[in-house]
Amino acid sequence: MKVHNFSAGPAILPASVMAEAAEAVRDFNGSGLSILEISHRSKPFVAVLEEAVSLVHELLGVSDDYAVLFLTGGASSQFYMTAMNILNDNETAGYINTGAWSTKAIKEAKNFGNIVELASSKDTNFSYIPKGYDIPADLKYVHLTSNNTIFGTQFQEFPATDVPLIADMSSDIFSRPLPVDRFGMIYAGAQKNMGPAGVALAIVRKDILGKVERTIPTMLNYQTHIDKNSSFNTPPVFPIFVSMLTMRWVKEQGGVDAMVPHNEAKAKIIYDAIDNSPIFEGVVTDTVDRSLMNATFVLKEQYAHLQDDFMAAATAANCSGVKGHRSVGGFRASIYNSMPHSSAQALADVMAEFAAKHA
Amino acid sequence: MKVHNFSAGPAILPASVMAEAAEAVRDFNGSGLSILEISHRSKPFVAVLEEAVSLVHELLGVSDDYAVLFLTGGASSQFYMTAMNILNDNETAGYINTGAWSTKAIKEAKNFGNIVELASSKDTNFSYIPKGYDIPADLKYVHLTSNNTIFGTQFQEFPATDVPLIADMSSDIFSRPLPVDRFGMIYAGAQKNMGPAGVALAIVRKDILGKVERTIPTMLNYQTHIDKNSSFNTPPVFPIFVSMLTMRWVKEQGGVDAMVPHNEAKAKIIYDAIDNSPIFEGVVTDTVDRSLMNATFVLKEQYAHLQDDFMAAATAANCSGVKGHRSVGGFRASIYNSMPHSSAQALADVMAEFAAKHA
Repeated sequence: MKVHNFSAGPAILPASVMAEAAEAVRDFNGSGLSILEISHRSKPFVAVLEEAVSLVHELLGVSDDYAVLFLTGGASSQFYMTAMNILNDNETAGYINTGAWSTKAIKEAKNFGNIVELASSKDTNFSYIPKGYDIPADLKYVHLTSNNTIFGTQFQEFPATDVPLIADMSSDIFSRPLPVDRFGMIYAGAQKNMGPAGVALAIVRKDILGKVERTIPTMLNYQTHIDKNSSFNTPPVFPIFVSMLTMRWVKEQGGVDAMVPHNEAKAKIIYDAIDNSPIFEGVVTDTVDRSLMNATFVLKEQYAHLQDDFMAAATAANCSGVKGHRSVGGFRASIYNSMPHSSAQALADVMAEFAAKHA
Repeated sequence: MKVHNFSAGPAILPASVMAEAAEAVRDFNGSGLSILEISHRSKPFVAVLEEAVSLVHELLGVSDDYAVLFLTGGASSQFYMTAMNILNDNETAGYINTGAWSTKAIKEAKNFGNIVELASSKDTNFSYIPKGYDIPADLKYVHLTSNNTIFGTQFQEFPATDVPLIADMSSDIFSRPLPVDRFGMIYAGAQKNMGPAGVALAIVRKDILGKVERTIPTMLNYQTHIDKNSSFNTPPVFPIFVSMLTMRWVKEQGGVDAMVPHNEAKAKIIYDAIDNSPIFEGVVTDTVDRSLMNATFVLKEQYAHLQDDFMAAATAANCSGVKGHRSVGGFRASIYNSMPHSSAQALADVMAEFAAKHA
């Protein structure tokens, strides 16, 4: 029976990608060799890497002013690498704090320069995206987390400023078109909306680099990976390959423009199920900030004792990975690009049936 | 027709591991989900990670004085992380330079303390392992590359000193028993003898940590990954899984003790083919230093014009990845744990046939 995978990450990938990936592990392109045992400098893998880079440029409309890199260490490594590569000790960057990931990014950046928190929604356990704050024009960059996987909030518009933006887009990359030219850098761990765990995407405006005075270890310097086309050392071959397959799938679906109505319709199924329910309620207080990728909800207070019962009902209906993050509680439905509407509907159905039984 | 894969890395893995890995991409343990889409905090993956750690302890006889970590960024990231975590600015570490990887390790460590080159074989393009040098007793550690993939040299014995050793064992980890207690740290990129690209193993003696005064970014601090069991952030799930399967295979073969005669017999096939040939000769000048993992050889000077012809002959016999590294030239047969004797014999046969035709 089909499992509906609502895991926040590592997360669902298209069924066709899984099938192609499994075949490539067995025999890559009829070569008689597995994708796991070929050299990263072999022509077939260089072609994979080039196609992956090309797809990022094409899908997001990234100009040649930017380098597209595939790195390791997840978004967590970008928390310090961004500041290490871009911010001098005596310079100031602004950060918008929308939750756990922003908080970590702020902590790591503080080792490399002056960090000001421009706005924060910590006052309500990050239940909204801050609005109406000032952005000083002399900041080196403004950092934000475009989608907060844990709390289920998402920037619908990016801050209006001429300061270059730097964004962690781990959980919504490739889910919508982006005004890339407003960004100094975009980075994303693959394992939510782009591919399997083990690779991170970095899109870096080349002229933002080379201006810091500190010594940077070779592997931590973006310029190293630009100069060597993400192959200074052995890159994570298989995670890059599967990410490339997933980007091909996005292109086949009509690109990121086509992802928008697809994701909106899917999110509507879940959010309607929440809003129309007598027993559930959404976590995000400013509903305009609701994420199209991660829908967070809880049982209303008088039904809170049914937490385990609903988890059991979801599991019985083959809805997997619905448990909320421990810092929010309740439930979370991650509904990334690859999630079909039928899975969202399956969860909505369980929610309705459960409410009918218990309300 | 079977391909004999002599690639230096990413490299051959056992056929049974490839089959299990492909099946897990399709359906992991009959769960209805792919290994690529399950949470790194799910019970099934936590069990994989725990088994991987346990197998490292068991196969190499690693005591609980050491932490076993699965990290990203390859051995190249360990070149600076070792010094960053272990060496203070005013302390001195000794490095033995046996080629490209040692040279890079020296370069990166110099950013974090005083580095002395204890010995080097650079004078002959690294064609031997240095011997008979002094090791000052007050060094913080002595760093070496246990096996040089490019030049085909390998430490048969480790330097006699009470100073803790730190070794890059990327290309010979799990190929033989190790005197682990003499090491402060052992690290290895997976993609040569342990698994696919995208994960690195670090075995760290816990009491060597926590003694440097600099601020270390959270992701670069070994203690972070010790405290969080290699899951501070999302680890590279699939590369760890396949490494675990490969370690299981080593155990099933009889462990690292059983790898020694297996690897010796295989290396003998290749080295005999070199030494008995009228047209080939080995690259390693001190034959006692010959690697059991990477056999390097060239055409004798009067036959050097046959370079491309031999590559074509090897390819015609389905021997893949035999081209030598550009800094050595000639040919290289990487014959890691997973390589069967029949493949080594296939290459030896091509060498003999080619010599018979051209000598």
